[in-house]
Amino acid sequence: MIENDKFREECGIFGVFSRELEVAPLIYYGLIALQHRGQESAGIAVSNGREILQKKGLGLVDEVFRGYNLEELKGALGIGHVRYSTFGGSSLVNAQPLTFKCRLGNLSLAHNGNLVNAGEIREQLEGQGTIFQTTNDSEVIAHLLAKSTTSELEGAIISALSQVKGAYSLLIMTLDKLIAIRDPHGIRPLVLGKYHKSYVVASETCALDTIGAEFIREINPGEMVVIDKDGVFSSTIFAGKCKGFCSFEYIYFSRPDSELQGKNVHSVRKNLGKILAKNYPVQGDLVTGVPDSSLSAAAGFAEELKIPYEMGLVRNRYIGRTFIKPSQELRNIGVSLKLNPVKQLVNGKRVVMVDDSIVRGTTAKKIVNLLREAGAKEVHVRISAPPVRFPCHLGIDTSSKGELLANSRDVEKMREIIGADSLAFLTEKELLEGIGFTDGLCTGCFTGDYPVQIKGGKKLEI
Amino acid sequence: MIENDKFREECGIFGVFSRELEVAPLIYYGLIALQHRGQESAGIAVSNGREILQKKGLGLVDEVFRGYNLEELKGALGIGHVRYSTFGGSSLVNAQPLTFKCRLGNLSLAHNGNLVNAGEIREQLEGQGTIFQTTNDSEVIAHLLAKSTTSELEGAIISALSQVKGAYSLLIMTLDKLIAIRDPHGIRPLVLGKYHKSYVVASETCALDTIGAEFIREINPGEMVVIDKDGVFSSTIFAGKCKGFCSFEYIYFSRPDSELQGKNVHSVRKNLGKILAKNYPVQGDLVTGVPDSSLSAAAGFAEELKIPYEMGLVRNRYIGRTFIKPSQELRNIGVSLKLNPVKQLVNGKRVVMVDDSIVRGTTAKKIVNLLREAGAKEVHVRISAPPVRFPCHLGIDTSSKGELLANSRDVEKMREIIGADSLAFLTEKELLEGIGFTDGLCTGCFTGDYPVQIKGGKKLEI
Amino acid sequence: MIENDKFREECGIFGVFSRELEVAPLIYYGLIALQHRGQESAGIAVSNGREILQKKGLGLVDEVFRGYNLEELKGALGIGHVRYSTFGGSSLVNAQPLTFKCRLGNLSLAHNGNLVNAGEIREQLEGQGTIFQTTNDSEVIAHLLAKSTTSELEGAIISALSQVKGAYSLLIMTLDKLIAIRDPHGIRPLVLGKYHKSYVVASETCALDTIGAEFIREINPGEMVVIDKDGVFSSTIFAGKCKGFCSFEYIYFSRPDSELQGKNVHSVRKNLGKILAKNYPVQGDLVTGVPDSSLSAAAGFAEELKIPYEMGLVRNRYIGRTFIKPSQELRNIGVSLKLNPVKQLVNGKRVVMVDDSIVRGTTAKKIVNLLREAGAKEVHVRISAPPVRFPCHLGIDTSSKGELLANSRDVEKMREIIGADSLAFLTEKELLEGIGFTDGLCTGCFTGDYPVQIKGGKKLEI
Amino acid sequence: MIENDKFREECGIFGVFSRELEVAPLIYYGLIALQHRGQESAGIAVSNGREILQKKGLGLVDEVFRGYNLEELKGALGIGHVRYSTFGGSSLVNAQPLTFKCRLGNLSLAHNGNLVNAGEIREQLEGQGTIFQTTNDSEVIAHLLAKSTTSELEGAIISALSQVKGAYSLLIMTLDKLIAIRDPHGIRPLVLGKYHKSYVVASETCALDTIGAEFIREINPGEMVVIDKDGVFSSTIFAGKCKGFCSFEYIYFSRPDSELQGKNVHSVRKNLGKILAKNYPVQGDLVTGVPDSSLSAAAGFAEELKIPYEMGLVRNRYIGRTFIKPSQELRNIGVSLKLNPVKQLVNGKRVVMVDDSIVRGTTAKKIVNLLREAGAKEVHVRISAPPVRFPCHLGIDTSSKGELLANSRDVEKMREIIGADSLAFLTEKELLEGIGFTDGLCTGCFTGDYPVQIKGGKKLEI
Repeated sequence: MIENDKFREECGIFGVFSRELEVAPLIYYGLIALQHRGQESAGIAVSNGREILQKKGLGLVDEVFRGYNLEELKGALGIGHVRYSTFGGSSLVNAQPLTFKCRLGNLSLAHNGNLVNAGEIREQLEGQGTIFQTTNDSEVIAHLLAKSTTSELEGAIISALSQVKGAYSLLIMTLDKLIAIRDPHGIRPLVLGKYHKSYVVASETCALDTIGAEFIREINPGEMVVIDKDGVFSSTIFAGKCKGFCSFEYIYFSRPDSELQGKNVHSVRKNLGKILAKNYPVQGDLVTGVPDSSLSAAAGFAEELKIPYEMGLVRNRYIGRTFIKPSQELRNIGVSLKLNPVKQLVNGKRVVMVDDSIVRGTTAKKIVNLLREAGAKEVHVRISAPPVRFPCHLGIDTSSKGELLANSRDVEKMREIIGADSLAFLTEKELLEGIGFTDGLCTGCFTGDYPVQIKGGKKLEI
Repeated sequence: MIENDKFREECGIFGVFSRELEVAPLIYYGLIALQHRGQESAGIAVSNGREILQKKGLGLVDEVFRGYNLEELKGALGIGHVRYSTFGGSSLVNAQPLTFKCRLGNLSLAHNGNLVNAGEIREQLEGQGTIFQTTNDSEVIAHLLAKSTTSELEGAIISALSQVKGAYSLLIMTLDKLIAIRDPHGIRPLVLGKYHKSYVVASETCALDTIGAEFIREINPGEMVVIDKDGVFSSTIFAGKCKGFCSFEYIYFSRPDSELQGKNVHSVRKNLGKILAKNYPVQGDLVTGVPDSSLSAAAGFAEELKIPYEMGLVRNRYIGRTFIKPSQELRNIGVSLKLNPVKQLVNGKRVVMVDDSIVRGTTAKKIVNLLREAGAKEVHVRISAPPVRFPCHLGIDTSSKGELLANSRDVEKMREIIGADSLAFLTEKELLEGIGFTDGLCTGCFTGDYPVQIKGGKKLEI
Repeated sequence: MIENDKFREECGIFGVFSRELEVAPLIYYGLIALQHRGQESAGIAVSNGREILQKKGLGLVDEVFRGYNLEELKGALGIGHVRYSTFGGSSLVNAQPLTFKCRLGNLSLAHNGNLVNAGEIREQLEGQGTIFQTTNDSEVIAHLLAKSTTSELEGAIISALSQVKGAYSLLIMTLDKLIAIRDPHGIRPLVLGKYHKSYVVASETCALDTIGAEFIREINPGEMVVIDKDGVFSSTIFAGKCKGFCSFEYIYFSRPDSELQGKNVHSVRKNLGKILAKNYPVQGDLVTGVPDSSLSAAAGFAEELKIPYEMGLVRNRYIGRTFIKPSQELRNIGVSLKLNPVKQLVNGKRVVMVDDSIVRGTTAKKIVNLLREAGAKEVHVRISAPPVRFPCHLGIDTSSKGELLANSRDVEKMREIIGADSLAFLTEKELLEGIGFTDGLCTGCFTGDYPVQIKGGKKLEI
Repeated sequence: MIENDKFREECGIFGVFSRELEVAPLIYYGLIALQHRGQESAGIAVSNGREILQKKGLGLVDEVFRGYNLEELKGALGIGHVRYSTFGGSSLVNAQPLTFKCRLGNLSLAHNGNLVNAGEIREQLEGQGTIFQTTNDSEVIAHLLAKSTTSELEGAIISALSQVKGAYSLLIMTLDKLIAIRDPHGIRPLVLGKYHKSYVVASETCALDTIGAEFIREINPGEMVVIDKDGVFSSTIFAGKCKGFCSFEYIYFSRPDSELQGKNVHSVRKNLGKILAKNYPVQGDLVTGVPDSSLSAAAGFAEELKIPYEMGLVRNRYIGRTFIKPSQELRNIGVSLKLNPVKQLVNGKRVVMVDDSIVRGTTAKKIVNLLREAGAKEVHVRISAPPVRFPCHLGIDTSSKGELLANSRDVEKMREIIGADSLAFLTEKELLEGIGFTDGLCTGCFTGDYPVQIKGGKKLEI
C-alpha cells in the first residue's frame, strides 16, 4: 500500500455555545467536516451546567460514535476534537478534549497546534511534582492554568499562555462558558460563526458551512473570545507579534471550500498551479493531479498552458482502512491498491503530474514509476510549493530533517531520485505571491525561519 | 442529508482461479476496487477442494471483514460479491455469493444483473414445490441448475440460462472450477485477467489493476468461460443476439479508470462533456461538476468552452455513513452536510453546473438552490446524458416511472422544477456518438427500448 | 482449558402467538432462559401479518441482539431458536429459524431434534433437483412441505413429517398461525403455556416461568397444535408409537427448575444421587459435585450417606468465551482456568466426586488428577447415570462410538484410565427407577436400543 | 429485572514480575479469576523496560480484550485491574491501571480500596494547582507520590501513603519494578504467589490457582513488597495499627475457593450457616440458598438441622447483561427473569431461605414473594451475617445509611417488611466466632465502628 508521504495535520477543533439547542449533534457534524485534519481519534465533551460529560475514542468520528446515543451527551455547550496520534497501546489516553477538575472548576480543553517549549515546561512541572497522564500539549496548558495564582479563569489563561511558545488554537470550556484563544502569531486557523442564536468556533469555515452556520470572522492572533450567556466578549491578550499563519494550510491541509484570511483555498491552489505553469512550463500531452489534494493546482496548471486536464490517476476511495497485511506478492504490486494510473490515458503520452508537496519523496517516486509502467513516454513533475527542507515544529507531524528529500539535495538530484524527466517547484516568493500575501505567513518548513524560536528543534517524543 | 438521487448499480463480482495462491486476499482487494458498484453487503466464498467456505455480511467490504481472519478462508479458488440490497430485517440473507449443495455438487454463485422473468420462473418453481430463502435472482438460477436434467454442470448451465431473460454477468464456482458467463446481450460488464499464473474475472478492469492483474479481454456476450487446472476454455453458449451493453456504465456506474469495450470511462465522460458544451453552450463564469461522478464531464465542458473549471461544490467525504438522525433544525439545513457550495467562488457568478444524470430531480433542485443561496447570479444545468424517462429492468435500482422527473415532462418544465436558468441534456444520438458506438448499447432508460422484452415492466418485489 | 466432555444439546425453541403484544421481547427472554440448550447461534423471526422479519447471528442471544433494536421485529406472532452449530466459515447459514417462501406462502421453521433419515431424504431430493443452502434438518422439512401435493398447510405438514424419522420438536410459523408439532415418540420436550391472552410454546417450562407464563401442558408425542386468532386446536397426527422421551434431558440437558413429564428435574437428579449412594456407597470425608450440572446429584448422594457436601471444585464463571490461545506454559496448567479444586477442603481427604455422566472420559481424568494434586488422599467417582456406550442419533452432538470411554471397556478399565480409587455408575434399571418411569424413555446411548431404527448409525455430515 | 441488592466490591488487582514470560496473558486470566470483584471496566498495563503500554475499556475482561491482540502488550512486568465504576459518560477515564509520568519516571497504579480522606486531600491539592482527570483514589496517590520531596520511589511511597487514611491494596509498577503495598489495617486482601520464576501479586488466592501459581503468603498489613530483578524485598512501612480485615470478604465478596487469612471461604460460609442453624433453628421442609453467594451457608444450615437442601431458586446465568428494557407487562413479572422459584419443590412446603446479607431489603422482599406465589406455605429467612446498619467507607459501594433496611428498624419490623414468617440474623459475636477470629476484623457496616476514623462519613462524589 502506498504510504502517504504527506505532512499530517494534527488536529481539528469545534465548539458551540447555545442557549437552547443540544449541541452534541452540531459538534458531531462539525467534526465530520473537519475529519481531514485528524483521523485517529475523536471526542466530544459537553457541559450540562452541573458537570462535563464526554465520549472519546480511536477512529473516525463516525466510528467512535457509531451505535452511541448522542443523547447521553445532553448539554447546550460543548467542544469537540479530531486528532492524529502516534500509534501504540496508549494512544486512547491522548484523545481530546481533555477534561479535568481543578481549583478553577470543571474544565475541558481542545487544542490544535504544537508548543515548542512543551518539553521544557513538562520537565519543570515534573520537577515540581506534577504528573502527566498524556503526551498532549493540552495537558501542559491544563497544569499551567491550575497552577496560576490568578483566581479568575481569564486571568489564569493569560498567565498560563504567557509561559508557552508555539502554535495554539485553543478551546476552553467551563460549565457555562466557551473560550477560544489563538496564539499571538495566529499559526493555526480559528474562526467564529453564528448558528441561529448559538455561537460556533471552528478550525475552518467549511465546518460552519456544514452545519449551516454563518461565518462572522476569524479569531485574531493573540485574541481571546469569551462566549457566555451574556454574549461574546473579545480581548487581545497578546499583541504586537508578527503574524505567522501556516502556509501549508493553503497548500495542503485545509479543505478546498474553506476560506482562510479572506481567501478561498481552492482558488489559491488553482492560482499556485497557474504560476507554476507560467514559470515552469513544459510540453505535455496531458496534466494530471494526484487525487485529491492537488486537483486544484493541476486544473490551474492545465488551464494556464491549455494542456488537457485528465484523470490520469484514480484513487480508490475505499482502500483507506483496510486491515489485512498484503502478502509478499501483493506488496510488490501494492502501490496500485490506492492509486490507479489509467493506462489508456497515459500510454505513449508526455504526462505532467502536478502535486502539492514532496516530503520524503517516496510516494512521488512510486507514482512516477506507476505512470511509466502504464506507458507514459515522459513524466514531468511540478510541485505547487517550494521544496520542504525543514521539519515543522508548530502542529504538523513531519519526518525528521534527514528524511526530507529536499534536505541537502538540489532539484536535479531530487529529479534523479524520483525518476522524473523534469521536476520543478515554486519558490517561496512565488508561493507568497500565489497566496496573495507578501508577508505574515509561516514558511518555516521551506526556509527554516519560524515565527517562534525553536530550541534545538526537537519535538517532544514520549 | 442529501438523498442520493442516482441510479444505483446492484452488484460487483470478482473471482480468482489459482493453483498456488490463497485467493481470499486478492478477492478482498478486488471487491474493494468494485465497492462503488454495491455498498450494502459483501461476501467471499472459497473452495479448498473439499468444501466451500464463506463469509458474508452487511456493510462495506472493509466493515464486513474487519477483525475477521482471512486465513479462515483458505483456498486457491474463490469468488466475491458486493451488492446493494433493499433495507429491512432480512437483508443479510440476500448477501451473495449464494452457496449450496445439489446433485451437481457444492456450488457457489455470484450474480450481477437482473432477470426480467425471474418473477414468472419463481412462480412456476414454487408451484413445483420449490422453496425460496432469498429474493436474489441467483437463487432462481441455482434452482434451474439443480433441476436441469443434464448431468454435467456445463450442460446444466446452458439449460438453466436458456430459461432466463435479462442481464447476468455470472460467476459459478464448483470445488475445482471457476465458470464465468455473460448474458447474450452483454448487458453488464465482465472482464478476464491474469495475475501471475492465476486467472481473474471481474466486473471492471479497475479491479484487475488494483491487484496488479493484467487485462486479457472482455468476456463476450453469450460466452461461457470455464477455468480449471487444465486452463481456460471458452464456448459461445448463446449467440446471434444484438448487443445491449448498458450505456449507464459509461455515464455513471463504472470507475473512471476502468476500460469498457476498449474505451476509458473518464475519456468517454470528458468527451460527453465536450459534446454537451459544443451543442448546448452557455455564457458562464465558471463550470463546476457535482463530485464525484460528473467531474470528468465538467472538465470536458469547461475545456471545450474555455470557461474556468472550478471546485464550486465540495463533497464531504466522511459524511457517508453517519448514523444520527438530524434534528429538525439540522434537517432544514441538512443539504449542506454532504455538498458544500463554495461561496467565494460562486458568489455573483454565472455558474454552469454539469451533472451526469437526473433521475427524480430532487438533488438537482437542492443543489441549484444551494448555489443560489451561495450567491450564484445564474445557474445553468447541463446533463451529460439524455433525460431518464423509463425505469431500468436490467440490474439497476431505479425509481418507478412516475417518480422520474423526465417522465411526461419536457425540458422547460423540468428546468422550472429544478429552478435553473437553463437546462440541457444530450440526445440519445449525441450520447452514442460521444461514447463512440452507433449501436449495440442499451439506452432503455432513455428510450424505453430494451434489448430484452419486459413483460409489464414490473420488477420483482418480495 | 478443560474441554467440556459432555453431550451437547442441539437446540432450544420458543414461539408466541399473541393478539396484542409485540412478541420479540418475550421471545428474546424465552431464548435466554433456553440458552443452556444451544450457545452458538440465535435467531428470532416474527410475522407482522404481511411479511416475516428476522434477525439471526452467531453467539449468545445477548451478543446477537446487543445494540440491535428489537422494535425492528414488530409483530404479534413469532418464533425463536438457539442452537449449537459446527464451527467453520459457513455456520451462520445454519442459524435458525429458517424462513422461506413457497407455494404454501411465507413460512418460518424452528426445529429441535435430529432426523435419522435426513441423509437419505437429502439424497433423494437432490436427485430431484433440490438445492440445500444449509445442513439443517429444518431445510429438509421445508422442502418436503413445499413438495407435498396437499394444498393446505396442515395436510402438507402431515405428509412431510410422515416421510421423516427421528426426533423433532418443531415450530412452524405462517403469516398468521403458529403450529407446534412433536414427533410420535416425543423424544425432545415441548410444552404449551399461556401468557395473558397469548399462547406460548417452548422447549422447557423454565422458559415459561421466565416470562411469567403459565404452564398448560406438554405437547403430546405425535400431536400437532395449531394456534391462530380463533384459538388453539389440537390433533393427533401420528399415534400408536411407543414413547421415547430422552432420558438425558433428566440427567443433564434440562434446567433444574424445569418440569419434564410432571417431574422436577432437580428432584430427579437428587434422587438419582441418593440411589447411587444407596447402591454404591463409599467411605468418604466429603462429597463434591462438578459444577454446575451434577450439584443436585451430589447433594442427594451426600444427604443419603450423611457425608458433608462441600464445594470441592469451584467453577470460574467468566472463563467461558475467552479468546486468547494459552501459551504452552498456560496450557500445561490450563485445566485450572475453568475448574479450581479447593486445596484446603480436599487436602488429605477421601473425596467423593459425583458427576452426571462420562462421555470420552477426558475431563473426568483431568479432574481426578486436579483433586489429587490438591492433596486428596482418595478420589472416588460416582456417576449418576449408566455408562454411555453408544452415540445419540436424535438431537445430541456426541462423539463417535470409538471415542466413548465406556465403549468396549468395563468399569474397572475405565476406573484405571481416569485414575480414580473407585468408580461406579447407575444401571439402566436404577436410572429409570430414579426418574420414576419404568418405560417410555429413550436410553439409546446406554443400551443402543433407540425408539427409531438407525440405519448404519451415521449422522449426516456435510 | 431484579436489582442486585448486594454490597458491591470495587476492585480486583493482579500483577506479575517475570524475567522471561510475556505477562499479559497471565494478567488476563488472573483478572478473569477476579472478575467477581468488579465487572464494569478492566485494564492491563505492561512495561517493556522502556515504556508502559496499556489497554483499558468498559465491560468484562473478556469484552474489553475480545478481538484485541494481547501481543501488543509485550512485556515481562505488568499489572491489571477490574473495577466497578459509576455509570455515566466519563466512566472510561476511571478505568485503571492509572499510568502517568512524573519526576519519579513512568509509573502505573492499580488500587483496591477506598481512602476516607481523599476528598480533603483533593481539595488541598486542587488549592495547590493540581488537576484531576479522574475520580479515582489512585490519582490522589499518584499526585502525592509526584509531590513528595523524597527522591527515591520507595521513600516517596512512604511519604505519600502516610498522608492517606483508609483502605488500600495497591500495586505500583515502574519500568522495572513491581511494588505491592497493603494499608496498615490490612482492610482489603492481597496475596503473594510464585509462578515458575515469576512473582505474582493478586487480590485473592483463586487468581493464583487459576494460572497455576503457588501461594506464598499474604502481604501483611502495613507491608511494602518490592519485586525486581534482584528478588523480593519486604519492609514494614506502617506498623502497630490494629488489624481491620473486611469481614464481608468472608461473607460475600471473595470467591468460595479463595483462602483468606488461612481460612477457606466456602468453609467459613458453611460454618456460618451451621451456627445460624444451631442458634436460630426453624421447622422447615427444605432449605434453599439464593444462588450463587449463599449456597455454602445454606448447605451448612441444612446439614446442621438435617433438613433437605434443595435448589428452590434457580438462577438464569445468561440474563446478566441483557440490554432491552422490559415493557410494562414484562416489568410486572420481571422478577422471574433472574431467579426462578421451583414450584414443584416449594409448593405446600415450609421453606427456609438462607441468604448472606440484606442491604436494602428490596430483593429479599421480592424473593419471599416469589416463593409464596410458587406455593410455599411458610417462608423463613435466615441471614448468615448481622444486620447491615451502616455504610462502608473502605472500598465497597453501599447505599446511604437511610436506605439500609436495618437502619433504625428492629428484626421484627424487618421481617414484616420483607414479608417472611420468621427472620433471624447472626450477631457480630457469632459472625466472628464463625469466621474463627475474635478480633482483627472490620465489622463497621454492622457496628459503625471502623478501623479508621470517618470524617462526616461522606464518600467523594464527583
